[in-house]
Amino acid sequence: MKPGNYTMLCDFYELTMANGYFQTEIRDRVTYFDVFFRKVPDNGGFAIAAGLEQVIDYIQNLEFTKEDIAYLRGKGGFSEEFLEYLKQFRFTGDIYAVPEGTPIFPGEPILMVRAPAIEAQFIETFVLLTINHQSLIATKANRIVRAAEGRPVSEFGSRRAQGADGAILGARASYIAGCIGSACTVADQLYEVPAGGTMAHSWVQMFEDEYTAFKTYCELYPHNCTLLVDTYNVLKSGVPNAIRAFQEILIPQGITKCAIRLDSGDLTYLSRKARKMLDAAGLKECKIVASNSLDEYLIRDLLLQDAQIDSFGVGERMITSKSEPVFGGVYKLAAIEDDQGKIVPKIKVSENPSKITNPHFKRVYRLFEKGNGKAIADLICIHDEVIDVTKPLELFDPDAVWKRATITKFVAKDLLVPIFKQGKLVYSSPSIHEIRKYCQDQVALLWEEVKRFENPHTYYVDLSRKLWNIKQELLAESGSFL
Amino acid sequence: MKPGNYTMLCDFYELTMANGYFQTEIRDRVTYFDVFFRKVPDNGGFAIAAGLEQVIDYIQNLEFTKEDIAYLRGKGGFSEEFLEYLKQFRFTGDIYAVPEGTPIFPGEPILMVRAPAIEAQFIETFVLLTINHQSLIATKANRIVRAAEGRPVSEFGSRRAQGADGAILGARASYIAGCIGSACTVADQLYEVPAGGTMAHSWVQMFEDEYTAFKTYCELYPHNCTLLVDTYNVLKSGVPNAIRAFQEILIPQGITKCAIRLDSGDLTYLSRKARKMLDAAGLKECKIVASNSLDEYLIRDLLLQDAQIDSFGVGERMITSKSEPVFGGVYKLAAIEDDQGKIVPKIKVSENPSKITNPHFKRVYRLFEKGNGKAIADLICIHDEVIDVTKPLELFDPDAVWKRATITKFVAKDLLVPIFKQGKLVYSSPSIHEIRKYCQDQVALLWEEVKRFENPHTYYVDLSRKLWNIKQELLAESGSFL
Repeated sequence: MKPGNYTMLCDFYELTMANGYFQTEIRDRVTYFDVFFRKVPDNGGFAIAAGLEQVIDYIQNLEFTKEDIAYLRGKGGFSEEFLEYLKQFRFTGDIYAVPEGTPIFPGEPILMVRAPAIEAQFIETFVLLTINHQSLIATKANRIVRAAEGRPVSEFGSRRAQGADGAILGARASYIAGCIGSACTVADQLYEVPAGGTMAHSWVQMFEDEYTAFKTYCELYPHNCTLLVDTYNVLKSGVPNAIRAFQEILIPQGITKCAIRLDSGDLTYLSRKARKMLDAAGLKECKIVASNSLDEYLIRDLLLQDAQIDSFGVGERMITSKSEPVFGGVYKLAAIEDDQGKIVPKIKVSENPSKITNPHFKRVYRLFEKGNGKAIADLICIHDEVIDVTKPLELFDPDAVWKRATITKFVAKDLLVPIFKQGKLVYSSPSIHEIRKYCQDQVALLWEEVKRFENPHTYYVDLSRKLWNIKQELLAESGSFL
Repeated sequence: MKPGNYTMLCDFYELTMANGYFQTEIRDRVTYFDVFFRKVPDNGGFAIAAGLEQVIDYIQNLEFTKEDIAYLRGKGGFSEEFLEYLKQFRFTGDIYAVPEGTPIFPGEPILMVRAPAIEAQFIETFVLLTINHQSLIATKANRIVRAAEGRPVSEFGSRRAQGADGAILGARASYIAGCIGSACTVADQLYEVPAGGTMAHSWVQMFEDEYTAFKTYCELYPHNCTLLVDTYNVLKSGVPNAIRAFQEILIPQGITKCAIRLDSGDLTYLSRKARKMLDAAGLKECKIVASNSLDEYLIRDLLLQDAQIDSFGVGERMITSKSEPVFGGVYKLAAIEDDQGKIVPKIKVSENPSKITNPHFKRVYRLFEKGNGKAIADLICIHDEVIDVTKPLELFDPDAVWKRATITKFVAKDLLVPIFKQGKLVYSSPSIHEIRKYCQDQVALLWEEVKRFENPHTYYVDLSRKLWNIKQELLAESGSFL
């Protein structure tokens, strides 16, 4: 693979289907696909969108090399005309997506594709892989960051990540969602995720004793001194040796900013004891960092128990979203265009109502209250519907239509923005720091009820009357199959 | 990053420690590190080692580029002498590892490093990441393959993988562990994991009706025809349309090999009904493929219920090891060499006994019964211990030493083999197909009791008397801390 060219990271069926479309009248048909998900991981109230920048890179690098085509010829089953066509294959369609860092909800499109059938179908695997992975980690990281209630959270999980991209882009996603940085060096070099770190247990073991290890470290890095105090015994050895090293090396230089890290044992008990020892030694500015199998639940419990922890390092439970390691984004056909260019909505029915898709080429509005700016609901419309914000708007639950509410004094913003138009990039990616800030701001616009870790309020994702009617018609037509 | 060069995929603390070692007498110290894990995912009886080939690639490509060094200079904190040293940094040590595909057990070294402190410490992050990821997926895939009792299992999970490497190397690991192939095209192109696939629901939706979609596919791919029959209604529409297409297109060409795929609904019920319909139509050679959130438990239950399924496609639950998505391999200092080159064993103590490490540079034997070839136990020894297989050997439980057994008529094989010697590759990697075969053969040498999915027999991983004594001495010395 050429660096950055992930063209061949596709399910093989994308190629068999592409070859098939190529040989039929479907070849030139314009199609519409939606990416959406059905359930927030960990039963949360919302997810955080991430991964769009890598989708953009993918689309821009999309190209079959000579080697790729030779490989496909060797597999057999593909026509020579199709292999010839692949030589000049590029993405020529439109893509709309929610910006990275946006809170997103089940059932609404988070990325929409309008393109010739072959192209739209082909990009499915990589688009899903990327959006699913980074949205998963961003969603988990945002939960963990919120649990820490303003205390900094760092991403520490590279060694337990599912592969190199899992580590690097996982660090990127967790930074977008609110972490202050990562232990992963290359995530800093490539994506500006601030990287940091100090010492492992082996540093302490490498010296003749713990004190010498600490002293040496303080001498080397007086301005970035976080001593790992649990190699032998936290309270009898680690903290006293750290205090001695700080007092002998840092204090005489006038340096009062320093830290200790706890990586095992009962973090509430040890942090409270350590805090008292540090304070008694006059090291009130010495911070306490905690790590060891942390997640949002454990952090919440530690803080409820008044643990004296100033910042957290979170590893495997964040970088794999261990409690729910799959973000179930799907890629579904929503419409096709007929020979006259008229959009024909398509639906995928299922005996399971939650698996029935929303048809048509869409436009999604997020509605905010005028006074406080809080998000009220998302409204999925037909692509050309315009909301008149000067008039009251009636919303209804698409599954329980007798549940209605009328809103006034609201603003409506487009949830998805144009990314590619006829294959050309029309979107200017914000910096990762801007995305992180945007995420923080947007999450602040959600009601607290939606942010509970357990049993959150279900945010409204409604259909416009027009779209709902079309869906019912299509369901009625296909009802004979069920 | 240069392709294949993952030098900068390291925790930042590897660099702060390296810079620190460089400026002290530890710089030239020879150290020994072990990779081992503490618990088999899913409470299984054994894991499958994987990822060594990527460790080898990593070590061979280890090199700081000019850009890397410029980046580190910009971060501050590193001495110019150290940055100068990094320009010629290479791995010059020894690595021993268990071959890929080997069943492995908690507590035993699966990879051992002997190298100068800076080098041995530096490679920690990437080595762990790679071994943890691929061993995780191989272990899960082997469970799923065993549940299928000889029926082929294909890996289908790219779109739900945690990043591109998660998809590609996850496909590699699942093939090693017994899958017959993957949907991931590039895993075939790069790693010879056989890729395959036919159609998505969107293929069926793209045509005017299901029958036309099936007919078109049969005409295009008469020799590789797996029709997805659940887009509308499996029994009322999908199977009848598939039968019609097979009979009209394939049978007249004398083609009897074909398949249908079920991707939703109750797979036992639907497969049994579909089998009857296919048989009644004379399509006895038509196979039934099933997919949809499968794992080892669901496959076992389906087969217990006499589901008529001939092969399985497994996605998210395998490619992320969803039920337990972390393989907790760790990297611990086991010994250092003193100025005279004498090995000084090191131990990491903990209040939690299961977290205490086994000290010293080691050699691990796997003991097999002479008659049936079954694996009896693994014995962790000091590096230069030789087992006399002509004499009875007493094994004892290292935690409950009164549990003893004496074995006779056994053979002892080294579990770990040399991979690098003084930085030079001395190992010839088998082909992926050889690794897969080796894995199958080695798993066959385990007792059935060890292979149970729930509550398996604990395979014996014992310490030699000599190593046990050294461990007790070191524990006694450090006991005052606890």
